[in-house]
Amino acid sequence: MNKSDIEIAREAKLKPISEIAGAMGISPQWVEEYGKYKAKIDWRLLKSAELPQKRAKYINITAISPTPLGEGKTTTTVGLVQGLGKIGKQAVACLRQPSMGPTFGIKGGAAGGGYSQIVPMEDFNLHLTGDIHAVSAAHNLCAAAVDARIYHESRWAPSYFEKLGLKILDIDPCRVSLGRVMDINDRGLRNVMTGLGGREDGPLRQSRFDISVASEVMAILALARDLPDLRKRLGRMVAACNKKGDPVTAEDLGVAGAMTVLMKDALKPNLLQTIEGQGSFVHAGPFANIAHGNSSIIADLLAVNYADFVVTEAGFGSDMGMEKFFDIKCRTSGLVPDAVVLVATVRALKSHGGGPAVVPGKPLPPEYKEENLELLKKGLPNLLAHIGIISRFGVPAVVAINAFPTDTEAEWELVRDAAIKAGAADAVVTTHWANGGEGAADLARAVEKAASLPSHFKLLYPDEVPLKQKIETVAVRVYGAEGVDFEKGVLKELDTLEEKGYGKLPVCMAKTQYSLSHDPALKGAPRGWRLPVREVRLAAGAGFVYPLCGAITTMPGLPSRPAFMDVDIDDDGTVRGLF
Amino acid sequence: MNKSDIEIAREAKLKPISEIAGAMGISPQWVEEYGKYKAKIDWRLLKSAELPQKRAKYINITAISPTPLGEGKTTTTVGLVQGLGKIGKQAVACLRQPSMGPTFGIKGGAAGGGYSQIVPMEDFNLHLTGDIHAVSAAHNLCAAAVDARIYHESRWAPSYFEKLGLKILDIDPCRVSLGRVMDINDRGLRNVMTGLGGREDGPLRQSRFDISVASEVMAILALARDLPDLRKRLGRMVAACNKKGDPVTAEDLGVAGAMTVLMKDALKPNLLQTIEGQGSFVHAGPFANIAHGNSSIIADLLAVNYADFVVTEAGFGSDMGMEKFFDIKCRTSGLVPDAVVLVATVRALKSHGGGPAVVPGKPLPPEYKEENLELLKKGLPNLLAHIGIISRFGVPAVVAINAFPTDTEAEWELVRDAAIKAGAADAVVTTHWANGGEGAADLARAVEKAASLPSHFKLLYPDEVPLKQKIETVAVRVYGAEGVDFEKGVLKELDTLEEKGYGKLPVCMAKTQYSLSHDPALKGAPRGWRLPVREVRLAAGAGFVYPLCGAITTMPGLPSRPAFMDVDIDDDGTVRGLF
Repeated sequence: MNKSDIEIAREAKLKPISEIAGAMGISPQWVEEYGKYKAKIDWRLLKSAELPQKRAKYINITAISPTPLGEGKTTTTVGLVQGLGKIGKQAVACLRQPSMGPTFGIKGGAAGGGYSQIVPMEDFNLHLTGDIHAVSAAHNLCAAAVDARIYHESRWAPSYFEKLGLKILDIDPCRVSLGRVMDINDRGLRNVMTGLGGREDGPLRQSRFDISVASEVMAILALARDLPDLRKRLGRMVAACNKKGDPVTAEDLGVAGAMTVLMKDALKPNLLQTIEGQGSFVHAGPFANIAHGNSSIIADLLAVNYADFVVTEAGFGSDMGMEKFFDIKCRTSGLVPDAVVLVATVRALKSHGGGPAVVPGKPLPPEYKEENLELLKKGLPNLLAHIGIISRFGVPAVVAINAFPTDTEAEWELVRDAAIKAGAADAVVTTHWANGGEGAADLARAVEKAASLPSHFKLLYPDEVPLKQKIETVAVRVYGAEGVDFEKGVLKELDTLEEKGYGKLPVCMAKTQYSLSHDPALKGAPRGWRLPVREVRLAAGAGFVYPLCGAITTMPGLPSRPAFMDVDIDDDGTVRGLF
Repeated sequence: MNKSDIEIAREAKLKPISEIAGAMGISPQWVEEYGKYKAKIDWRLLKSAELPQKRAKYINITAISPTPLGEGKTTTTVGLVQGLGKIGKQAVACLRQPSMGPTFGIKGGAAGGGYSQIVPMEDFNLHLTGDIHAVSAAHNLCAAAVDARIYHESRWAPSYFEKLGLKILDIDPCRVSLGRVMDINDRGLRNVMTGLGGREDGPLRQSRFDISVASEVMAILALARDLPDLRKRLGRMVAACNKKGDPVTAEDLGVAGAMTVLMKDALKPNLLQTIEGQGSFVHAGPFANIAHGNSSIIADLLAVNYADFVVTEAGFGSDMGMEKFFDIKCRTSGLVPDAVVLVATVRALKSHGGGPAVVPGKPLPPEYKEENLELLKKGLPNLLAHIGIISRFGVPAVVAINAFPTDTEAEWELVRDAAIKAGAADAVVTTHWANGGEGAADLARAVEKAASLPSHFKLLYPDEVPLKQKIETVAVRVYGAEGVDFEKGVLKELDTLEEKGYGKLPVCMAKTQYSLSHDPALKGAPRGWRLPVREVRLAAGAGFVYPLCGAITTMPGLPSRPAFMDVDIDDDGTVRGLF
């Protein structure tokens, strides 16, 4: 029990990834090994006669609103897959690839933990097979194409471009919406001035860097169904406006083909394994605020053919990643979910109930380590609100109470009762962190049962509803707002988007994850508030409109003592300090 | 003959890379496949009992001073390996990995051409196995660490850092020498202002981006002998100075361990194959001006154990990449070269002779397509100067005349005669571009013969000579200068470097590649000039001092019609427009 995650991961007997793929039923011609323990699976398998055309039960993992104490959503995803294995089911996890920014910043690894992990955890947390690097390269090539075009058009006569067979794009340097990206936490790059220097050094502009997983290219990777779809979506990406205000796309810049070439291998999902030897796809990792926060459609489409259960995790709480899982990812893929697992911990619920602040490095206050039914009760409304959100989509909910050794039976019972009264199909204590799949066998049985209930899944809104109404529907029916306040200009912008033919797109709400509302300070299940929408933006390639409800940081910073300081490597290549 | 490079590459019957490694004699435990046609070879093989402890003949490929017409150095490297195969020798090529910046900018691919190529050429020219991305990630993590430290130290009292167990670094924001890097041609990033925005957004500083292959991390990758050596070198990298003027290293920043972890897989050389099925290492690709322009030491150390001949290419002409190959790479690795192949074309020599300018997109002037012995004769001094440089290192030179269909026998004869008179061991016409290995069989025989001559290899200067004298030695004995003019402050800076213990390092001259002098306009073999040294910088991790002799661009720009415009992909995944 006192072993670190990396020690547990290292003691695991890994199977060669070719064996894992073989056991799933995928024949070698589709498997590209990247070293012995990771592989890419060719997406063309989806079009081949070999595809079994099976349809696994499709399970989404979500959680209550995040707290500094963590809920263990990834751990539960992996634990459930292992638990399903223990009860004799073929199960596959579909996870997002984490950004290296937080890995070296504050968070450490994201491969699960304890006896519920994806291995090799170093690969999971570092470059993996380079997909995020491919996203950065494709994105930044497009950004360079914008500045190069502004630069050359400012220097040469139109006749010169005619001779080259190029249309004048007349990009407005003040309306370049595409920044650049880097997969590192680097606050100094949030706002930059580029093109300083001399006459040869490009157009002087104010610009920005986002972390790579915030790139629209990442959202596109997660939503593309195949290569031609990827190519089309990248071509539709809007990088800037011309001086008339018309969008300039990657296609207009002539760079969409090269971007797709840079992404051709990234499009193939990565196969790794759980610590108990089950295949797990790790593919794409878009932000869960300005993007939709879910792993790739291609991985899920493959996975459902090779398992009884596919377990896939969405970012943040059910108001964020899960809502987008349904309304954006399932809408695009056509896959229908069979059950949702809502992860909660007694500790995190106490935090929602108003428990004392948790300070990293300081000992945990006693409220979190001793029985405190009062505090726990005060935190339940957040759990119940999330159960309510799930039921509004018509999908059975199973609450997973991720156990800590300091929890008491009475505390678990309180949570269980409340959850079932609120309409959860079941609520189960799970100890996969300490006990691996064995510890999640009860959860697995509950999920199996819930997933066999009749499904009444429905999207929150049809495509045809106007954008304004879509935003209001999410705000009221998911977040519990009384209504939406659109700031100046937003309604006009929504009208423009409708006119230009983007009205049928779903909306991807960019909101804080820490509250069901837009205000991170409002814990529990806030009532009597209205959602402000400050701005609305278009992700034409990804295929959604994203309203901004508050300030969203798309480039994190490094803390005073970054996690990278603990990371090192022994002479034999053993990595230390990743956790 | 009219097939494009990509068509020829695609028609080649590739062998599985495991088979290639097996044929070389490398057992499977050291081979990490990345897909079916590329692999990483574990550097730990160098320490294993399995290593054959053989020592292949070690051949360097260089060229005359580059011209817009190209000389075909990479093509000749691959062709020679194929040619050696045809005469019954085991041969391995060791190449640099190209940057994607030029690939999508102006140059197209760099995998050779015609029937002398490295395949798969798409992988060679794109991400390969992600090594350059790893270099970028490690470099940029260090850069982010610098700004994060400046930011936090400006905000909190020293006692706070004491509590965190951190020493105050007191970095001078005006003396941060480390920029950031990106593997893209993007002139807008040459000079940037970072840290704009609000109080939370980092220190406001002027900074820059270089292309990733100009990163010191890339030079370190190329020069490291093993993982512990890599770890030490990265730790020594100087990122900034503190306010007293003392260097602040990656070790001081606590980031060297994490950087090494990011580089642990990049340290393993990549194995690909020639179009005729011989193993080829592709590993590291540092700039050949501010860095030493050679592929990795680890790949060469491995390769010499698994071949009769190892053929390795250095950047630009013999004054640049080859001098650094000897004085930096061989000095560090201890490997001793057996012969040098100097590549020249009749066309390029005519350009050196004062032939008309070549304009991309315009038809080639007739001088280059018809016999013109006068013009060719005027261009010979450049060839002869390079032969002289090679002979100064005591290594036999073979001139490879890379044939074009428009060359005439008389032209070849003129070059051959002059080369042999100047001391070349041989001069051979080679048609590997059109005929593959068969076309380079004569060259292979000449190289075999030259490499069996007694070797008198000597470094240009011993470690103990002062830095100033090292610079003068290279300027006078290699470039043909009459002397060196050190600009104001440079001599003092050299003294400081000597005092600080860096006096034993070799020098890595940052000079234009287009002339033997510092002035790109001076073609042929200029005489009567002095080399100006404007500035001198330290690469403490790579282990060299680099004097700047003129302006060196470390971030290229995109042209008006970038090469990416031709690149696209078919629905089945076939790449078009890479060449």
